[in-house]
Amino acid sequence: MTRAPIGVLASGRGSNLLAILEASNAPDYPARVALVLSDVEDAPALDHARAAGVDALYVPPGPRRARVSPETEARMVEELRTRGVRLVALAGFMRILSPRFLDAFPNRVINIHPSLLPSFPGLEAQRQAFAHGVRISGCTTHIVDAGVDSGPILFQAAVPVRDEETAESLAARILAEEHKLYPRTITALLTQELVFDGRRCLFRPKGAPR
Amino acid sequence: MTRAPIGVLASGRGSNLLAILEASNAPDYPARVALVLSDVEDAPALDHARAAGVDALYVPPGPRRARVSPETEARMVEELRTRGVRLVALAGFMRILSPRFLDAFPNRVINIHPSLLPSFPGLEAQRQAFAHGVRISGCTTHIVDAGVDSGPILFQAAVPVRDEETAESLAARILAEEHKLYPRTITALLTQELVFDGRRCLFRPKGAPR
Repeated sequence: MTRAPIGVLASGRGSNLLAILEASNAPDYPARVALVLSDVEDAPALDHARAAGVDALYVPPGPRRARVSPETEARMVEELRTRGVRLVALAGFMRILSPRFLDAFPNRVINIHPSLLPSFPGLEAQRQAFAHGVRISGCTTHIVDAGVDSGPILFQAAVPVRDEETAESLAARILAEEHKLYPRTITALLTQELVFDGRRCLFRPKGAPR
Repeated sequence: MTRAPIGVLASGRGSNLLAILEASNAPDYPARVALVLSDVEDAPALDHARAAGVDALYVPPGPRRARVSPETEARMVEELRTRGVRLVALAGFMRILSPRFLDAFPNRVINIHPSLLPSFPGLEAQRQAFAHGVRISGCTTHIVDAGVDSGPILFQAAVPVRDEETAESLAARILAEEHKLYPRTITALLTQELVFDGRRCLFRPKGAPR
Protein backbone atom coordinates (compact mmCIF):
# COMPACT_ATOMS: atom_id res chain seq x y z
CA MET A 1 0.00 0.00 0.00
CA THR A 2 1.19 3.50 -0.79
CA ARG A 3 0.98 5.76 2.20
CA ALA A 4 0.08 9.36 1.54
CA PRO A 5 2.64 11.89 2.82
CA ILE A 6 1.11 14.40 5.22
CA GLY A 7 2.50 17.48 6.96
CA VAL A 8 1.91 18.55 10.55
CA LEU A 9 2.17 22.11 11.89
CA ALA A 10 2.71 22.49 15.64
CA SER A 11 3.69 25.23 18.07
CA GLY A 12 3.98 23.30 21.31
CA ARG A 13 4.21 19.84 22.78
CA GLY A 14 2.38 18.32 19.84
CA SER A 15 0.52 15.58 21.68
CA ASN A 16 -1.76 15.25 18.68
CA LEU A 17 1.34 14.89 16.50
CA LEU A 18 2.39 11.99 18.74
CA ALA A 19 -1.03 10.41 18.34
CA ILE A 20 -0.75 10.69 14.54
CA LEU A 21 2.80 9.29 14.57
CA GLU A 22 1.62 6.39 16.71
CA ALA A 23 -1.35 5.68 14.43
CA SER A 24 0.95 5.73 11.43
CA ASN A 25 3.04 2.95 12.98
CA ALA A 26 0.26 0.57 12.01
CA PRO A 27 1.15 -1.00 8.64
CA ASP A 28 -2.30 -0.34 7.19
CA TYR A 29 -2.51 3.33 8.21
CA PRO A 30 -3.02 5.35 5.02
CA ALA A 31 -0.71 8.24 5.95
CA ARG A 32 2.89 8.80 6.91
CA VAL A 33 4.12 12.05 8.42
CA ALA A 34 6.58 13.44 5.88
CA LEU A 35 7.29 16.81 7.51
CA VAL A 36 6.69 18.67 10.75
CA LEU A 37 6.92 22.46 10.73
CA SER A 38 6.95 24.71 13.78
CA ASP A 39 6.93 28.45 14.32
CA VAL A 40 8.61 27.83 17.71
CA GLU A 41 12.27 26.88 17.53
CA ASP A 42 12.31 24.79 20.71
CA ALA A 43 8.86 23.25 20.32
CA PRO A 44 8.89 19.67 21.69
CA ALA A 45 6.95 18.70 18.57
CA LEU A 46 10.15 19.13 16.52
CA ASP A 47 12.03 16.80 18.87
CA HIS A 48 9.24 14.22 18.69
CA ALA A 49 9.38 14.32 14.90
CA ARG A 50 13.16 13.93 14.75
CA ALA A 51 13.00 11.08 17.27
CA ALA A 52 10.57 9.35 14.91
CA GLY A 53 12.87 9.91 11.95
CA VAL A 54 10.61 12.55 10.42
CA ASP A 55 11.87 15.74 8.76
CA ALA A 56 11.36 18.64 11.16
CA LEU A 57 11.91 22.31 10.38
CA TYR A 58 11.68 25.50 12.37
CA VAL A 59 10.17 28.26 10.24
CA PRO A 60 10.73 31.75 11.68
CA PRO A 61 7.25 33.29 11.76
CA GLY A 62 8.29 36.90 11.38
CA PRO A 63 7.24 39.97 13.34
CA ARG A 64 3.46 39.55 13.65
CA ARG A 65 1.96 37.90 16.71
CA ALA A 66 -0.95 35.99 15.25
CA ARG A 67 0.21 35.32 11.71
CA VAL A 68 3.16 33.98 9.74
CA SER A 69 5.06 36.31 7.38
CA PRO A 70 4.27 35.87 3.67
CA GLU A 71 7.88 34.82 3.00
CA THR A 72 7.73 32.07 5.61
CA GLU A 73 4.30 30.91 4.44
CA ALA A 74 5.69 30.63 0.91
CA ARG A 75 8.59 28.57 2.22
CA MET A 76 6.22 26.34 4.21
CA VAL A 77 4.19 25.66 1.06
CA GLU A 78 7.35 24.85 -0.85
CA GLU A 79 8.70 22.46 1.80
CA LEU A 80 5.35 20.68 1.98
CA ARG A 81 4.97 20.47 -1.81
CA THR A 82 8.52 19.20 -2.25
CA ARG A 83 7.55 16.22 -0.13
CA GLY A 84 4.33 15.63 -2.05
CA VAL A 85 2.18 16.37 0.99
CA ARG A 86 -1.55 15.76 0.34
CA LEU A 87 -2.91 16.82 3.71
CA VAL A 88 -1.75 19.38 6.30
CA ALA A 89 -2.82 18.79 9.91
CA LEU A 90 -2.53 21.57 12.48
CA ALA A 91 -1.68 20.20 15.92
CA GLY A 92 -1.65 23.08 18.35
CA PHE A 93 -0.40 25.52 15.70
CA MET A 94 -1.04 28.92 17.24
CA ARG A 95 -1.10 31.19 14.19
CA ILE A 96 -3.73 32.05 11.61
CA LEU A 97 -2.86 30.92 8.08
CA SER A 98 -3.52 33.22 5.15
CA PRO A 99 -5.67 32.32 2.15
CA ARG A 100 -2.43 32.08 0.18
CA PHE A 101 -1.37 29.10 2.28
CA LEU A 102 -4.85 27.57 2.45
CA ASP A 103 -5.37 27.85 -1.31
CA ALA A 104 -2.21 25.81 -1.88
CA PHE A 105 -3.99 22.82 -0.28
CA PRO A 106 -7.70 23.37 -0.99
CA ASN A 107 -9.89 21.74 1.70
CA ARG A 108 -6.82 19.81 2.80
CA VAL A 109 -5.66 21.91 5.75
CA ILE A 110 -7.36 20.56 8.87
CA ASN A 111 -7.38 21.36 12.57
CA ILE A 112 -8.59 19.86 15.81
CA HIS A 113 -10.29 21.97 18.48
CA PRO A 114 -11.13 20.97 22.08
CA SER A 115 -14.85 21.81 22.07
CA LEU A 116 -18.00 20.88 20.21
CA LEU A 117 -17.87 23.72 17.71
CA PRO A 118 -19.51 26.13 17.08
CA SER A 119 -19.56 26.39 20.89
CA PHE A 120 -16.39 27.83 22.43
CA PRO A 121 -14.07 28.73 19.56
CA GLY A 122 -10.73 30.34 20.35
CA LEU A 123 -8.36 29.92 23.25
CA GLU A 124 -8.95 27.85 26.39
CA ALA A 125 -12.02 26.18 24.96
CA GLN A 126 -12.12 23.54 27.69
CA ARG A 127 -12.08 26.22 30.38
CA GLN A 128 -14.76 28.23 28.54
CA ALA A 129 -17.00 25.15 28.38
CA PHE A 130 -16.40 24.26 32.01
CA ALA A 131 -17.19 27.77 33.23
CA HIS A 132 -20.30 27.93 31.07
CA GLY A 133 -21.58 24.81 32.81
CA VAL A 134 -22.21 22.57 29.80
CA ARG A 135 -22.93 18.92 30.55
CA ILE A 136 -21.45 17.71 27.28
CA SER A 137 -18.33 19.01 25.62
CA GLY A 138 -15.88 17.27 23.30
CA CYS A 139 -13.65 17.91 20.33
CA THR A 140 -14.03 18.76 16.67
CA THR A 141 -11.94 18.22 13.56
CA HIS A 142 -12.60 20.77 10.84
CA ILE A 143 -11.31 22.19 7.60
CA VAL A 144 -9.33 25.36 8.22
CA ASP A 145 -10.71 28.52 6.68
CA ALA A 146 -9.69 32.16 7.06
CA GLY A 147 -11.52 32.50 10.41
CA VAL A 148 -10.76 31.12 13.87
CA ASP A 149 -12.17 27.60 14.33
CA SER A 150 -14.93 28.47 11.87
CA GLY A 151 -14.39 26.06 8.97
CA PRO A 152 -16.62 23.13 7.92
CA ILE A 153 -16.81 20.41 10.56
CA LEU A 154 -15.40 16.98 9.70
CA PHE A 155 -15.94 14.87 12.82
CA GLN A 156 -16.80 15.39 16.48
CA ALA A 157 -16.57 13.33 19.67
CA ALA A 158 -18.62 14.04 22.79
CA VAL A 159 -17.20 14.07 26.31
CA PRO A 160 -19.63 14.29 29.25
CA VAL A 161 -18.81 16.80 32.00
CA ARG A 162 -19.04 15.24 35.45
CA ASP A 163 -20.26 16.92 38.63
CA GLU A 164 -16.90 16.42 40.33
CA GLU A 165 -15.02 17.72 37.27
CA THR A 166 -12.34 20.39 37.19
CA ALA A 167 -11.37 22.31 34.08
CA GLU A 168 -8.14 20.30 34.06
CA SER A 169 -9.75 16.86 34.34
CA LEU A 170 -12.17 17.80 31.58
CA ALA A 171 -9.31 18.97 29.35
CA ALA A 172 -7.49 15.68 29.95
CA ARG A 173 -10.48 13.56 28.94
CA ILE A 174 -11.10 15.71 25.86
CA LEU A 175 -7.43 15.32 24.89
CA ALA A 176 -7.77 11.53 25.07
CA GLU A 177 -10.66 11.77 22.59
CA GLU A 178 -8.65 14.11 20.35
CA HIS A 179 -5.94 11.49 20.07
CA LYS A 180 -8.48 9.05 18.62
CA LEU A 181 -10.48 11.54 16.53
CA TYR A 182 -7.57 13.12 14.65
CA PRO A 183 -6.06 9.89 13.24
CA ARG A 184 -9.58 8.74 12.31
CA THR A 185 -10.23 12.04 10.49
CA ILE A 186 -7.00 11.73 8.51
CA THR A 187 -7.93 8.18 7.52
CA ALA A 188 -11.33 9.31 6.27
CA LEU A 189 -9.88 12.18 4.22
CA LEU A 190 -7.30 9.90 2.56
CA THR A 191 -9.46 6.84 1.91
CA GLN A 192 -12.89 8.32 1.18
CA GLU A 193 -14.24 11.09 -0.99
CA LEU A 194 -15.24 14.32 0.72
CA VAL A 195 -18.51 15.73 -0.65
CA PHE A 196 -19.97 19.07 0.45
CA ASP A 197 -23.67 19.65 1.00
CA GLY A 198 -23.65 23.36 1.80
CA ARG A 199 -21.20 23.42 4.66
CA ARG A 200 -21.96 19.82 5.67
CA CYS A 201 -19.01 17.48 5.05
CA LEU A 202 -20.07 14.04 3.90
CA PHE A 203 -17.86 11.07 3.12
CA ARG A 204 -18.51 8.66 0.27
CA PRO A 205 -16.58 5.63 -0.95
CA LYS A 206 -14.06 6.77 -3.58
CA GLY A 207 -15.52 6.66 -7.07
CA ALA A 208 -19.11 6.26 -5.86
CA PRO A 209 -21.85 8.07 -7.78
CA ARG A 210 -22.88 11.33 -6.08
CA MET B 1 -44.91 9.73 48.96
CA THR B 2 -46.07 13.28 48.43
CA ARG B 3 -45.81 14.29 44.82
CA ALA B 4 -44.81 17.90 44.13
CA PRO B 5 -47.30 19.86 42.04
CA ILE B 6 -45.71 21.32 38.90
CA GLY B 7 -47.00 23.61 36.17
CA VAL B 8 -46.41 23.31 32.43
CA LEU B 9 -46.58 26.17 29.92
CA ALA B 10 -47.12 25.21 26.28
CA SER B 11 -48.03 26.92 23.03
CA GLY B 12 -48.39 23.96 20.69
CA ARG B 13 -48.72 20.21 20.53
CA GLY B 14 -46.96 19.78 23.84
CA SER B 15 -45.16 16.52 23.12
CA ASN B 16 -42.88 17.22 26.08
CA LEU B 17 -45.99 17.74 28.20
CA LEU B 18 -47.13 14.28 27.12
CA ALA B 19 -43.74 12.84 28.10
CA ILE B 20 -44.00 14.47 31.53
CA LEU B 21 -47.60 13.25 31.98
CA GLU B 22 -46.52 9.75 31.02
CA ALA B 23 -43.55 9.81 33.42
CA SER B 24 -45.84 10.99 36.21
CA ASN B 25 -48.01 7.91 35.72
CA ALA B 26 -45.30 5.95 37.49
CA PRO B 27 -46.23 5.70 41.18
CA ASP B 28 -42.77 6.74 42.35
CA TYR B 29 -42.45 9.79 40.08
CA PRO B 30 -41.84 12.82 42.34
CA ALA B 31 -44.07 15.26 40.42
CA ARG B 32 -47.66 15.53 39.29
CA VAL B 33 -48.80 18.07 36.72
CA ALA B 34 -51.20 20.34 38.59
CA LEU B 35 -51.83 22.92 35.86
CA VAL B 36 -51.19 23.49 32.16
CA LEU B 37 -51.30 27.05 30.84
CA SER B 38 -51.28 28.04 27.19
CA ASP B 39 -51.16 31.34 25.34
CA VAL B 40 -52.86 29.62 22.39
CA GLU B 41 -56.55 28.90 22.86
CA ASP B 42 -56.67 25.81 20.63
CA ALA B 43 -53.27 24.40 21.58
CA PRO B 44 -53.41 20.58 21.57
CA ALA B 45 -51.48 20.72 24.87
CA LEU B 46 -54.66 21.95 26.58
CA ASP B 47 -56.60 19.00 25.20
CA HIS B 48 -53.91 16.57 26.31
CA ALA B 49 -54.02 18.03 29.82
CA ARG B 50 -57.81 17.82 30.06
CA ALA B 51 -57.75 14.26 28.74
CA ALA B 52 -55.38 13.41 31.58
CA GLY B 53 -57.65 15.05 34.14
CA VAL B 54 -55.29 18.00 34.63
CA ASP B 55 -56.46 21.61 35.03
CA ALA B 56 -55.86 23.45 31.76
CA LEU B 57 -56.30 27.17 31.17
CA TYR B 58 -55.99 29.42 28.18
CA VAL B 59 -54.39 32.71 29.20
CA PRO B 60 -54.85 35.49 26.58
CA PRO B 61 -51.32 36.78 26.01
CA GLY B 62 -52.25 40.33 25.07
CA PRO B 63 -51.15 42.46 22.13
CA ARG B 64 -47.39 41.85 22.01
CA ARG B 65 -45.94 39.17 19.76
CA ALA B 66 -43.07 37.81 21.84
CA ARG B 67 -44.25 38.50 25.39
CA VAL B 68 -47.22 38.05 27.67
CA SER B 69 -49.04 41.10 29.04
CA PRO B 70 -48.24 42.00 32.67
CA GLU B 71 -51.86 41.37 33.63
CA THR B 72 -51.80 37.87 32.19
CA GLU B 73 -48.40 37.10 33.71
CA ALA B 74 -49.79 38.13 37.11
CA ARG B 75 -52.74 35.83 36.60
CA MET B 76 -50.47 32.97 35.56
CA VAL B 77 -48.44 33.39 38.75
CA GLU B 78 -51.64 33.42 40.80
CA GLU B 79 -53.06 30.29 39.17
CA LEU B 80 -49.77 28.44 39.66
CA ARG B 81 -49.38 29.58 43.27
CA THR B 82 -52.98 28.67 44.12
CA ARG B 83 -52.10 25.09 43.21
CA GLY B 84 -48.88 25.14 45.23
CA VAL B 85 -46.70 24.69 42.14
CA ARG B 86 -43.01 24.25 42.98
CA LEU B 87 -41.63 24.01 39.47
CA VAL B 88 -42.71 25.50 36.15
CA ALA B 89 -41.68 23.64 33.00
CA LEU B 90 -41.89 25.32 29.60
CA ALA B 91 -42.80 22.84 26.88
CA GLY B 92 -42.75 24.67 23.57
CA PHE B 93 -43.93 27.91 25.16
CA MET B 94 -43.19 30.51 22.51
CA ARG B 95 -43.05 33.73 24.54
CA ILE B 96 -40.38 35.38 26.68
CA LEU B 97 -41.28 35.61 30.36
CA SER B 98 -40.53 38.80 32.29
CA PRO B 99 -38.38 38.95 35.42
CA ARG B 100 -41.63 39.52 37.33
CA PHE B 101 -42.79 36.03 36.42
CA LEU B 102 -39.36 34.43 36.84
CA ASP B 103 -38.82 36.03 40.26
CA ALA B 104 -42.03 34.42 41.49
CA PHE B 105 -40.35 30.99 41.08
CA PRO B 106 -36.63 31.65 41.57
CA ASN B 107 -34.49 29.12 39.66
CA ARG B 108 -37.62 27.01 39.29
CA VAL B 109 -38.73 27.95 35.78
CA ILE B 110 -37.08 25.54 33.36
CA ASN B 111 -37.05 24.96 29.63
CA ILE B 112 -35.90 22.36 27.14
CA HIS B 113 -34.14 23.33 23.92
CA PRO B 114 -33.37 21.09 20.91
CA SER B 115 -29.62 21.77 20.64
CA LEU B 116 -26.48 21.47 22.74
CA LEU B 117 -26.52 25.03 24.05
CA PRO B 118 -24.80 27.46 23.80
CA SER B 119 -24.76 26.34 20.14
CA PHE B 120 -27.89 27.21 18.17
CA PRO B 121 -30.18 29.13 20.52
CA GLY B 122 -33.48 30.47 19.19
CA LEU B 123 -35.87 29.11 16.63
CA GLU B 124 -35.35 26.05 14.43
CA ALA B 125 -32.32 24.91 16.38
CA GLN B 126 -32.33 21.46 14.77
CA ARG B 127 -32.32 23.02 11.29
CA GLN B 128 -29.56 25.45 12.30
CA ALA B 129 -27.41 22.58 13.58
CA PHE B 130 -28.06 20.46 10.50
CA ALA B 131 -27.17 23.30 8.10
CA HIS B 132 -24.03 24.12 10.09
CA GLY B 133 -22.86 20.55 9.58
CA VAL B 134 -22.28 19.51 13.19
CA ARG B 135 -21.68 15.81 13.79
CA ILE B 136 -23.17 15.89 17.28
CA SER B 137 -26.24 17.80 18.35
CA GLY B 138 -28.71 17.07 21.11
CA CYS B 139 -30.92 18.78 23.64
CA THR B 140 -30.50 20.87 26.76
CA THR B 141 -32.59 21.54 29.84
CA HIS B 142 -31.85 24.87 31.50
CA ILE B 143 -33.07 27.39 33.99
CA VAL B 144 -34.96 30.18 32.27
CA ASP B 145 -33.49 33.67 32.58
CA ALA B 146 -34.39 36.95 30.92
CA GLY B 147 -32.57 36.01 27.69
CA VAL B 148 -33.38 33.53 24.95
CA ASP B 149 -32.09 30.02 25.80
CA SER B 150 -29.28 31.62 27.80
CA GLY B 151 -29.89 30.42 31.37
CA PRO B 152 -27.74 28.00 33.40
CA ILE B 153 -27.64 24.51 31.91
CA LEU B 154 -29.15 21.65 33.93
CA PHE B 155 -28.68 18.55 31.75
CA GLN B 156 -27.82 17.71 28.16
CA ALA B 157 -28.13 14.67 25.92
CA ALA B 158 -26.07 14.15 22.76
CA VAL B 159 -27.51 12.98 19.44
CA PRO B 160 -25.10 12.06 16.63
CA VAL B 161 -25.86 13.43 13.16
CA ARG B 162 -25.70 10.76 10.49
CA ASP B 163 -24.45 11.16 6.93
CA GLU B 164 -27.83 10.18 5.51
CA GLU B 165 -29.65 12.53 7.90
CA THR B 166 -32.25 15.13 7.00
CA ALA B 167 -33.14 18.06 9.22
CA GLU B 168 -36.43 16.28 9.92
CA SER B 169 -34.91 12.93 10.91
CA LEU B 170 -32.45 14.73 13.18
CA ALA B 171 -35.28 16.69 14.82
CA ALA B 172 -37.20 13.46 15.42
CA ARG B 173 -34.28 11.75 17.13
CA ILE B 174 -33.56 14.84 19.25
CA LEU B 175 -37.23 14.92 20.27
CA ALA B 176 -37.02 11.31 21.45
CA GLU B 177 -34.10 12.32 23.70
CA GLU B 178 -36.03 15.37 24.95
CA HIS B 179 -38.81 13.09 26.12
CA LYS B 180 -36.33 11.28 28.36
CA LEU B 181 -34.26 14.29 29.44
CA TYR B 182 -37.12 16.51 30.62
CA PRO B 183 -38.72 14.04 33.08
CA ARG B 184 -35.22 13.20 34.37
CA THR B 185 -34.46 16.91 34.92
CA ILE B 186 -37.69 17.41 36.85
CA THR B 187 -36.86 14.42 39.05
CA ALA B 188 -33.42 15.83 39.84
CA LEU B 189 -34.77 19.28 40.72
CA LEU B 190 -37.40 17.82 43.06
CA THR B 191 -35.34 15.14 44.77
CA GLN B 192 -31.86 16.68 44.94
CA GLU B 193 -30.43 19.99 46.00
CA LEU B 194 -29.33 22.37 43.24
CA VAL B 195 -26.02 24.07 44.04
CA PHE B 196 -24.46 26.76 41.84
CA ASP B 197 -20.74 27.00 41.13
CA GLY B 198 -20.66 30.19 39.06
CA ARG B 199 -23.12 29.29 36.36
CA ARG B 200 -22.49 25.55 36.71
CA CYS B 201 -25.50 23.68 38.10
CA LEU B 202 -24.53 20.83 40.40
CA PHE B 203 -26.83 18.40 42.17
CA ARG B 204 -26.25 17.14 45.70
CA PRO B 205 -28.25 14.77 47.90
CA LYS B 206 -30.72 16.82 49.92
CA GLY B 207 -29.23 17.93 53.23
CA ALA B 208 -25.66 17.00 52.23
CA PRO B 209 -22.87 19.30 53.40
CA ARG B 210 -21.73 21.71 50.68
